[in-house]
Amino acid sequence: MRIYEFDGFPNPARVRMALAEKGLTDKAEFISVNVPEGEHRTAEFLAKNPSGAVPVLELEDGLTISECTAITEYIDHIDGDPKLTGATPRTRGQIHMIQRRAEAKLLDAVADYFHHATPGLGPNIETHQNAEWGERHKMQAYEGMRYFDGVLANQDYVAGEDYSMADITTLAGLAFADFTGIAIPPECTNLTKWRARASARYS
Amino acid sequence: MRIYEFDGFPNPARVRMALAEKGLTDKAEFISVNVPEGEHRTAEFLAKNPSGAVPVLELEDGLTISECTAITEYIDHIDGDPKLTGATPRTRGQIHMIQRRAEAKLLDAVADYFHHATPGLGPNIETHQNAEWGERHKMQAYEGMRYFDGVLANQDYVAGEDYSMADITTLAGLAFADFTGIAIPPECTNLTKWRARASARYS
Repeated sequence: MRIYEFDGFPNPARVRMALAEKGLTDKAEFISVNVPEGEHRTAEFLAKNPSGAVPVLELEDGLTISECTAITEYIDHIDGDPKLTGATPRTRGQIHMIQRRAEAKLLDAVADYFHHATPGLGPNIETHQNAEWGERHKMQAYEGMRYFDGVLANQDYVAGEDYSMADITTLAGLAFADFTGIAIPPECTNLTKWRARASARYS
Repeated sequence: MRIYEFDGFPNPARVRMALAEKGLTDKAEFISVNVPEGEHRTAEFLAKNPSGAVPVLELEDGLTISECTAITEYIDHIDGDPKLTGATPRTRGQIHMIQRRAEAKLLDAVADYFHHATPGLGPNIETHQNAEWGERHKMQAYEGMRYFDGVLANQDYVAGEDYSMADITTLAGLAFADFTGIAIPPECTNLTKWRARASARYS
């Protein structure tokens, strides 16, 4: 399989972490798409993902799958032993719930701040900005950090006692937050400890 | 199981459709949460869903699951025969990809328009509005309709040849669009035909 990505971006990092968890990194060929130069908006790339975003997974027969949750579902199930997306109806529900919250409350909130209230990827790429929306979502990112700190008060990982794709998404959200200057509030000690523990898996 | 919902809202309708597809409607007890009166912001309800939104699924042991994709994953797997979320890694990937697009390009775009550029649920509920953001997402909802019209040019359902949760989400998005006055562009004949066919499942 091929993965179209851009080094250092938060969403491609989610797929890299999922592949690492599954021991499948060496089964993937990684192809860089130069997003800062607008390569994600060429007709060739839009044919792979009409939403014009990385990462994209391309299978041997040409089928392309985008959206990180979808790519992770594929990766997690190809060996018949899902461990990132849940093995029971109950854990599937819990993991997908927290996955969506990690996007909405953290990763997407940071992205809205970055793309709307900072220079983002520069004027050629950021052709529409709404600073009020961006600043508001910076505040929501802090709220998201406090939310996850609370979640981690009583359990080892964000969706329960086992590591899952929701932890990956939360890690990616925090890395993006670092990049944009949104620091974890000092009182969020559960989140900081979890981050050190979860990050150690990839060191 | 209990479902906390509000009649006529698009996201609770997604769970109703998923239950109907699975033949599980009579296994659920439906409890109305008066969102227009702010009942979703009471401490009692926030304990069930800290995001303060319906629908919420509550299991017999008190576990609560929110976010429609998560609830649908639970409902689809409890009989061990998933048919809405995909039975193979490939179909899981395709369905989750289109599910996310049906949210981002259509249902959430309409919601952003409704809550930010119209009176929405009234001044007591809509305590933050950003009209520019809302109007822009009205345009994105039209783009989303054109996107799905193109998808449906060569296949029977939005995620492939079989009906899935992504069709449910697209139906809910179109119903919400109707409510807000965003009509399907007349040239989107594939989308209109698909809608008639898909809606007939629930008549």
